[in-house]
Amino acid sequence: MTPTLGQVFLSELFGTLILILVGAGVCAAVTLPKSKAQASGWIVISWGWGLAVFMGVYAAYATGAHINPAVTLGLAAAGRDLAAGVPATAVNIAVYVAGQMVGAFLGAVAAWLAYKKHFDEEAPAEAKLGCFSTAPSIRSYGWNLVTEVIATFVLVGWIIQSGKTPSQLGPLAVALVVVGIGLALGGPTGYAINPARDLGPRLAHAVLPIPGKGGSDWSYAWVPVVGPIIGGVAAGLIVPSMAGLF
Amino acid sequence: MTPTLGQVFLSELFGTLILILVGAGVCAAVTLPKSKAQASGWIVISWGWGLAVFMGVYAAYATGAHINPAVTLGLAAAGRDLAAGVPATAVNIAVYVAGQMVGAFLGAVAAWLAYKKHFDEEAPAEAKLGCFSTAPSIRSYGWNLVTEVIATFVLVGWIIQSGKTPSQLGPLAVALVVVGIGLALGGPTGYAINPARDLGPRLAHAVLPIPGKGGSDWSYAWVPVVGPIIGGVAAGLIVPSMAGLF
Amino acid sequence: MTPTLGQVFLSELFGTLILILVGAGVCAAVTLPKSKAQASGWIVISWGWGLAVFMGVYAAYATGAHINPAVTLGLAAAGRDLAAGVPATAVNIAVYVAGQMVGAFLGAVAAWLAYKKHFDEEAPAEAKLGCFSTAPSIRSYGWNLVTEVIATFVLVGWIIQSGKTPSQLGPLAVALVVVGIGLALGGPTGYAINPARDLGPRLAHAVLPIPGKGGSDWSYAWVPVVGPIIGGVAAGLIVPSMAGLF
Amino acid sequence: MTPTLGQVFLSELFGTLILILVGAGVCAAVTLPKSKAQASGWIVISWGWGLAVFMGVYAAYATGAHINPAVTLGLAAAGRDLAAGVPATAVNIAVYVAGQMVGAFLGAVAAWLAYKKHFDEEAPAEAKLGCFSTAPSIRSYGWNLVTEVIATFVLVGWIIQSGKTPSQLGPLAVALVVVGIGLALGGPTGYAINPARDLGPRLAHAVLPIPGKGGSDWSYAWVPVVGPIIGGVAAGLIVPSMAGLF
Repeated sequence: MTPTLGQVFLSELFGTLILILVGAGVCAAVTLPKSKAQASGWIVISWGWGLAVFMGVYAAYATGAHINPAVTLGLAAAGRDLAAGVPATAVNIAVYVAGQMVGAFLGAVAAWLAYKKHFDEEAPAEAKLGCFSTAPSIRSYGWNLVTEVIATFVLVGWIIQSGKTPSQLGPLAVALVVVGIGLALGGPTGYAINPARDLGPRLAHAVLPIPGKGGSDWSYAWVPVVGPIIGGVAAGLIVPSMAGLF
Repeated sequence: MTPTLGQVFLSELFGTLILILVGAGVCAAVTLPKSKAQASGWIVISWGWGLAVFMGVYAAYATGAHINPAVTLGLAAAGRDLAAGVPATAVNIAVYVAGQMVGAFLGAVAAWLAYKKHFDEEAPAEAKLGCFSTAPSIRSYGWNLVTEVIATFVLVGWIIQSGKTPSQLGPLAVALVVVGIGLALGGPTGYAINPARDLGPRLAHAVLPIPGKGGSDWSYAWVPVVGPIIGGVAAGLIVPSMAGLF
Repeated sequence: MTPTLGQVFLSELFGTLILILVGAGVCAAVTLPKSKAQASGWIVISWGWGLAVFMGVYAAYATGAHINPAVTLGLAAAGRDLAAGVPATAVNIAVYVAGQMVGAFLGAVAAWLAYKKHFDEEAPAEAKLGCFSTAPSIRSYGWNLVTEVIATFVLVGWIIQSGKTPSQLGPLAVALVVVGIGLALGGPTGYAINPARDLGPRLAHAVLPIPGKGGSDWSYAWVPVVGPIIGGVAAGLIVPSMAGLF
Repeated sequence: MTPTLGQVFLSELFGTLILILVGAGVCAAVTLPKSKAQASGWIVISWGWGLAVFMGVYAAYATGAHINPAVTLGLAAAGRDLAAGVPATAVNIAVYVAGQMVGAFLGAVAAWLAYKKHFDEEAPAEAKLGCFSTAPSIRSYGWNLVTEVIATFVLVGWIIQSGKTPSQLGPLAVALVVVGIGLALGGPTGYAINPARDLGPRLAHAVLPIPGKGGSDWSYAWVPVVGPIIGGVAAGLIVPSMAGLF
């Protein structure tokens, strides 16, 4: 059943909302003061984001569960339909991305509500921003971009390729890929690998009334948008040619 | 095969008993003195509760494995049957919830027996209570309620929606959702997301002969009952309408 | 195809050998000096043993993969065949258990070989024994027995019951149950939940030439044998009656 | 559809590239200075490598996804075809191994690019080398070899045997086996269990311009090549005979 544009918008919105509620939630859980999960480490972060994808994919299943503009653009670059009966036209791409951006913003607001009293506590401004958007551990725009390109290439390449190797894992397979990317490639930049995941919550950070929140680090904001777009489009262009060899 | 009311009662009792035996067990494992798993952190807590759900769902499979009044009420609010051939009447709901409450109480007693010598050791009263029921890290009834409402909405919404996206993960899927909720949204209140999970063990704490156990914190007890009910019923009312759009 | 007694013996031997090689291995990994995984905590222990079961079940799949006398006796108590075409006669039970015991002994020897240089390092005698067999954190034979009975009841009860709730998880399901039991109920006694898992490696500890190994703590050795047998047989007697209600 | 030699080469190259990108990445994530995952422990290492296998198997699915010369040689020793329509001739084996070696080298380069700024930081030479190849915690060539033989025997034996016990886990099953081997048997040598995994990245370490990288420890380099080959071939020779008994 072909979804309408309104259905695409809402489906991607809900899926990305869940993704960011759970993903921003796990960052809050690990970093905010007095959280029961404080300082529980990278295994919690990476599994938390992986399961955020797991849950978000269920929520947006009706439209192919992109919940990530890099996936939408990667599929378009690969010449694929965005979902059954939804060709990769400019309008359709825009509706997918709009739903993802609004969902990411609202998901960050929901995570903020869930951790409201913890955001009100005194904490470094970077820790509060880190619950919303990513930041590099060593700031170097060029190399940070490289990391995001590589990590997103792996993600989108896997999504494009994985249809050939069926199992019954359902959304768990892509969730495990995201856990793996987080464990392995998250060290330098915190693995945005999704423009909406970073930009939507950063906007939420900018507008929400959080005590001592500091700036939203807009000078870095382009990296986790441009890097994943490059990586996703590159995967869309390259991976089908490689897979077509077999 | 339609279960009788007695079968519903026993099935939900056994499932919730296993849920709480394993779940209260993991809290005891991490917090009680001299436990081999002491201080093993949030990843142990969240996987422990997730696998508690996994095992509890198997035990109560014959009746749909609610093992949570918020699920029962959410399904009723969604206009669904509670199980095949079991309509959501007041009597049926009451039998489901009664089984869950008795099972939760007995599961807490079983966990106490398994850790008897550790409960007899000297430890802060809050640590001993924390093996039975949840407590907020920052006490604020209103915001604690918000956290429980959001987390339970995600859980029950997923359960109502997930039937549309089949995989062969069986009970593992809902277990992973609970792991994800725990990792992401457990920081502020310890994620009851289930009135029976909190109230049944709290009653057990009140009556069991545990040295130095302190009070059972009844002033907070309504939050992990009311919050999950609101979240579950809200999910039952809202999610089917959203899903119906697609 | 009905296995012969020799096939039963070898299949259970290989399965239990893998179980103990991986399981004793993870204990050595976490506790022995200079291991790269030293002090990596309970999450490593519990996942290690769970995946030990996963791998052992594959190895012994042809005979139902008991790899645990408590499972064999529990199935017998439940009136089940031990495998297709293998009724629960005294001789068949004895062959299953003999294979399991020999396999457990050999698995411990293999783990010792893999960690030979680390066993040769100076370390507390309890740490070296802990790579082979379990020990209680608070010694109290009666309550230690209770813990082992409860934990094994959950395991064997799940195995007897799980046939009714099919998924395509294969051996992963029982592995996850063992992870859950380890996380939740392993704190007091280190969860033998398998007489062969404890007694076979203890015999290996007694005969292997390990510097500074100390005694093999034979005074405790009956608890992780008798407890799992009681728990397994109780599950075999009780769970089918409960499940029969539905 | 029988793959050509060129397809075999590229498929194994891509699969091993992903394996090492993710695997070397997780080592970098845990050990390099300023990584967000620094010191996150053995659970991160073992899950990271397990999911590296998961992802690599998808990438090389068209050719059976050996991504490991020990698997290729083990299948040959077992008298199996390397893939459907690809018999285990010397030429075919050589093409498999060549693709694996080139892929491992390139995967290490990609991981280095992703962590470029972290490799440029000051850190012990052993930590930098440890992102590429394995090293024993207690140097003893003979016993290190024993550990690698045992661990690889378990891996390749499982791969040869697992076809008999179908589930729908797809590549997750072998990934979990690798997690289990890592947790249990990785303590002494860091579990190469794959000659390409160790030698390819070691060559990359030798040629890449990394500040303060020190030597590439060539005196140890034969152990993680010879050990896995012995273990894989032994599994290929022994396991089918054992399995043939059933």
